[in-house]
Amino acid sequence: MILPKASRLTPEQLAEVTQIVGAFGCHIQPIIGAVRSIYAIVGDERDELMINRLEGLDYIERVDQIQSPHKLMDRRSDLASHRIKVGGVRAGEELLVIAGHCTIDPKNPNLFYETAQAVKEAGAHSLRGGVWKPRTNPYSFQGDNKSLDILMEAHRRTGLPVDAEVMDEHQLRLALDAGVHMLQVGARNGLNYSLLRAIGHAVAEHDTVVLLKRGLHMGPLNEFISAAEYIVAFGNPNILLCPRGTSPALDGYRNHPDESITPLLKEKTWAPVVVDPSHSVGKASYVPACALAAVAYGADGLCIETHIAPSKGIGDDPKQAVTPDVLAALIRDAKQLWALRHPQPAKAVA
Amino acid sequence: MILPKASRLTPEQLAEVTQIVGAFGCHIQPIIGAVRSIYAIVGDERDELMINRLEGLDYIERVDQIQSPHKLMDRRSDLASHRIKVGGVRAGEELLVIAGHCTIDPKNPNLFYETAQAVKEAGAHSLRGGVWKPRTNPYSFQGDNKSLDILMEAHRRTGLPVDAEVMDEHQLRLALDAGVHMLQVGARNGLNYSLLRAIGHAVAEHDTVVLLKRGLHMGPLNEFISAAEYIVAFGNPNILLCPRGTSPALDGYRNHPDESITPLLKEKTWAPVVVDPSHSVGKASYVPACALAAVAYGADGLCIETHIAPSKGIGDDPKQAVTPDVLAALIRDAKQLWALRHPQPAKAVA
Amino acid sequence: MILPKASRLTPEQLAEVTQIVGAFGCHIQPIIGAVRSIYAIVGDERDELMINRLEGLDYIERVDQIQSPHKLMDRRSDLASHRIKVGGVRAGEELLVIAGHCTIDPKNPNLFYETAQAVKEAGAHSLRGGVWKPRTNPYSFQGDNKSLDILMEAHRRTGLPVDAEVMDEHQLRLALDAGVHMLQVGARNGLNYSLLRAIGHAVAEHDTVVLLKRGLHMGPLNEFISAAEYIVAFGNPNILLCPRGTSPALDGYRNHPDESITPLLKEKTWAPVVVDPSHSVGKASYVPACALAAVAYGADGLCIETHIAPSKGIGDDPKQAVTPDVLAALIRDAKQLWALRHPQPAKAVA
Amino acid sequence: MILPKASRLTPEQLAEVTQIVGAFGCHIQPIIGAVRSIYAIVGDERDELMINRLEGLDYIERVDQIQSPHKLMDRRSDLASHRIKVGGVRAGEELLVIAGHCTIDPKNPNLFYETAQAVKEAGAHSLRGGVWKPRTNPYSFQGDNKSLDILMEAHRRTGLPVDAEVMDEHQLRLALDAGVHMLQVGARNGLNYSLLRAIGHAVAEHDTVVLLKRGLHMGPLNEFISAAEYIVAFGNPNILLCPRGTSPALDGYRNHPDESITPLLKEKTWAPVVVDPSHSVGKASYVPACALAAVAYGADGLCIETHIAPSKGIGDDPKQAVTPDVLAALIRDAKQLWALRHPQPAKAVA
Repeated sequence: MILPKASRLTPEQLAEVTQIVGAFGCHIQPIIGAVRSIYAIVGDERDELMINRLEGLDYIERVDQIQSPHKLMDRRSDLASHRIKVGGVRAGEELLVIAGHCTIDPKNPNLFYETAQAVKEAGAHSLRGGVWKPRTNPYSFQGDNKSLDILMEAHRRTGLPVDAEVMDEHQLRLALDAGVHMLQVGARNGLNYSLLRAIGHAVAEHDTVVLLKRGLHMGPLNEFISAAEYIVAFGNPNILLCPRGTSPALDGYRNHPDESITPLLKEKTWAPVVVDPSHSVGKASYVPACALAAVAYGADGLCIETHIAPSKGIGDDPKQAVTPDVLAALIRDAKQLWALRHPQPAKAVA
Repeated sequence: MILPKASRLTPEQLAEVTQIVGAFGCHIQPIIGAVRSIYAIVGDERDELMINRLEGLDYIERVDQIQSPHKLMDRRSDLASHRIKVGGVRAGEELLVIAGHCTIDPKNPNLFYETAQAVKEAGAHSLRGGVWKPRTNPYSFQGDNKSLDILMEAHRRTGLPVDAEVMDEHQLRLALDAGVHMLQVGARNGLNYSLLRAIGHAVAEHDTVVLLKRGLHMGPLNEFISAAEYIVAFGNPNILLCPRGTSPALDGYRNHPDESITPLLKEKTWAPVVVDPSHSVGKASYVPACALAAVAYGADGLCIETHIAPSKGIGDDPKQAVTPDVLAALIRDAKQLWALRHPQPAKAVA
Repeated sequence: MILPKASRLTPEQLAEVTQIVGAFGCHIQPIIGAVRSIYAIVGDERDELMINRLEGLDYIERVDQIQSPHKLMDRRSDLASHRIKVGGVRAGEELLVIAGHCTIDPKNPNLFYETAQAVKEAGAHSLRGGVWKPRTNPYSFQGDNKSLDILMEAHRRTGLPVDAEVMDEHQLRLALDAGVHMLQVGARNGLNYSLLRAIGHAVAEHDTVVLLKRGLHMGPLNEFISAAEYIVAFGNPNILLCPRGTSPALDGYRNHPDESITPLLKEKTWAPVVVDPSHSVGKASYVPACALAAVAYGADGLCIETHIAPSKGIGDDPKQAVTPDVLAALIRDAKQLWALRHPQPAKAVA
Repeated sequence: MILPKASRLTPEQLAEVTQIVGAFGCHIQPIIGAVRSIYAIVGDERDELMINRLEGLDYIERVDQIQSPHKLMDRRSDLASHRIKVGGVRAGEELLVIAGHCTIDPKNPNLFYETAQAVKEAGAHSLRGGVWKPRTNPYSFQGDNKSLDILMEAHRRTGLPVDAEVMDEHQLRLALDAGVHMLQVGARNGLNYSLLRAIGHAVAEHDTVVLLKRGLHMGPLNEFISAAEYIVAFGNPNILLCPRGTSPALDGYRNHPDESITPLLKEKTWAPVVVDPSHSVGKASYVPACALAAVAYGADGLCIETHIAPSKGIGDDPKQAVTPDVLAALIRDAKQLWALRHPQPAKAVA
């Protein structure tokens, strides 16, 4: 859809535009309005180069694209019937819960083993444990390979599948070799297409699940869904979309909570949505309310930072991790709200 | 708290700063740090002029204020024990529901009377009906005084207290004279201090409730709370704070839903929070999820655009009003979630 | 332009849509795409109610509007040839400079008289002086009617036309009665349509100029231009558009400088653009750079807070006012850059 | 600086806080205010873990940090006297100009060679040519290794040093091996700390310059400066900071132009600022005005997409590249404005 700056194109301009789109196998259908005319591009109007050529013309205001650029993530794609399983639970059939440390402390492995056991008892299906950490400040603690052994040992002790963030190809290889069950793409890498491609390539041969956090400053949902499309394009559709708050922060929270995008994601894609309220609000006391709001909006799962003794945690845990008791109460309430929104066998609320 | 640009103030700079704050009855207490020094202002550091004088100095980076500028709205004020009653319900003791038309159609009063009866049966405590409308486009329908009669007639027929937005002193006077029970300050007037003062003045002599919508583009919560302070300063503390989504919109909604500020407002103020999910999301099908999320975050009430036949509505109603059936289901679910969050007699979840 | 949620409308949906737009004198022209179809509305597609009815349908994603809602401000309107004169200068033919106090101190009229004389000598064409002040904090100084006398006395002493902000109908009446030459609509009233209408009405009978500040949190340019349309609709086209920075602030400034919208405004409207760098950056030392940037972007004028002794100022002056010396240097440089961008008689730079 | 939620800490709370900061070698100095008390942390208050532990306490509202986390980039560091040379020009002594294609078309190398020669003649000091491209859409053209040969051939033909963006370690190695003179970190990798570290490591042994684009959605300036700190920490201080517009876009441009951060960057760091107006505004016709605004704000250089025949370009070039003629006029005007801002030998304007 071409919008001219003036009220309509001159015949010469129309000829030039027609020639440009013709080179991409499209043609122009003018819509002659009473006040202003617009010009539909008939054919596949998604070609970036064609659009750039049109938008480069001085007399064009802009070109609106209508079609989705993500054919695999689209909820009308064949993948829509795919079901993703985490720790014995099929996403969409029961509320999925991922819980654990934001950062594993390599000097205190027992803290993590105790948390692992406690979140299992509280009802979590998967164990999260940060091994490597992205840090704004180059001089902060950036994680430790030893934590990977601690993570896998916690898996052996509890039987829970484990989840870790990877930030480059080296970490990706280490995590896959160790047998990590779920790879997390963090909020700072949502536009790191080299990493997204590498992960897509690597997990294509495995049954690994990818938990894709929404980018820290991400704008339109298409950016988020395109990041998922990069990963799925290589053949493994085990992807979970994870809103986790965006920056700049809502005045008083760590980020701007964004669980409200859940219905919008579900209209566009087939992928389960697992909300991370811990990073969204950034302070433990606000986490249960945000978690319930996520379920209210239709989330399929929750990712909750939990620590057996938050004040002894490292990284963000002292600030935002809840205790296993709070996690257990939160899961109990969230399941009741989930039941309210998924009545058996009758119709949904919203 | 004064932060210099350099690592510390020179003796001459310190003398100048001391003199400036001295003129406002304050003194300076330096905090000599290992790397950088800062300078506390001891006394009442809220004076805008003192801060502007300090920030005007070339060697000062900024002055941080710590104290709250709103002494009446603060939850530590004497007003914190005040309870606001709407339609027989005391806010905080039961989920408060306001429902009705965004815009009353002066040509079809029966539509509004039918809606009024239906929202009463669905469980609403107060009836909303837009008489005058703020419009971006000067040539759009701006409301009609006749709608005020229709609103009051609906009150007589149903017994429900009624709510209307006023945008200037003339409308304010008309609404109060007609006996409107709740005055609404709309999202475009959140920074219109002349109007806020006029309303505060006018309602001081009445028992009228003021529903203060959050400003359309409002930033820090202090702006919202200061707007309430303007109204309460004249003596009537019957104020409800109403988050209703902010602009720019979250990609796919009409606005950026902001029910998540509820816990932050409650930490700072004593006023009940009544969320408007209809304007937040802007499309009827998303309203029930957003309403539940508001209750999840601890809202005391909901304001829901409802219409007996949305497609026959005017203003925003065709797009965002739910039907009375949806309202009834929404209230039922919201009350269940409210009960989950307010267990009797035990403690709350979050 | 109607975008359905699915790849195309069903025949029943198309019939319903056709019926809705038919009621508004429009018809539908489908554009059948290879992948997705869209549906043009032929006729005047700007009716808000028609759009709301269409967007209320469950199967419609959104309706894109193409035509401008502001017929008078549009640069293709008959008003485009109107020239606005301030202090003997016709906007567009020479760089227009407005300068003076953000706030007149009613206790120190001489400070203002000295500033008035000094800005005249520095080359300003109009004298700005704040009489009434909008304040976030209800307990701050809100201005004083006495300052209006001081403002008019400064006019008598210097011959410069004077400019003051009005925030309600009462102040509007006082200012017009006193003979103020330019009325300013402040950044908090950009969406206060009752005030905009009242000003439009009042100035229609005068030759008064209106300096319309961009709203503090204003989003799309259409909001800004529509605010101008409200004023001009009553018959007086003496309007100056004034970008003055938006909120939230760019990290380190008072606001987010927005002089860069100048070329965008000029493409859409015929009105002169007068940039206020003082509020944009909020600190005197940054003002000259921001002023030059505004001229680089094609601004027709500048509005510069200037004070004979900034540290003795009140309101924002101690922080952001420059001295008359700095103003004079700034005007000299800005005029050189203006000459560079408006070569005589040859072509423009951009 | 610790801000409690209540007006002051209880003795027990103060003891707990004192113990936490004590573990990090700091102590607490209370500032007892008339209305509210705050608590300074004396020592190095930048430790993230200490801050997280404090902010995890229920009775703490927040902890304000004052000290800069970037010790090498700080303008008070020893590196401040370092001068960076590009194509024979020392940044800061003359306006630095980088120009060329956003994307090299591997099928039409001659277009690039012609552009290279033309930008040299127009006065550019360095040649930009995109080899690999980050793309939101996984199915778009992502660049081609062959373009690296074309880039180096253009260097041989013109003698201009060349600049290319790298997005991962593999591309980094290829670019360094080929002898690329300037590496560009793109706007999507501003928070990709693995890449930043890898580049810092790799260029430490070379004299390579790094052009660090500001992140696409970057918030506070500290994020930008910290990204530079990552690179410089390995020993090569040849870094140029490149504002290039942020997202979300200013209504009508491709991004939100951000040349206005230049004075803020210069107050905090010693590094030269090279503004990219092409991506900021995203349309060729707006580029000259934005370039002049950058110089008005004190930029040390400009990075301008230029193409011998924009409509034949690929990537973003058809839309935003200017022709060599426009580049030449732009450089001429920019140099005049530069001279105005850097009078010889007298003092600067701002």
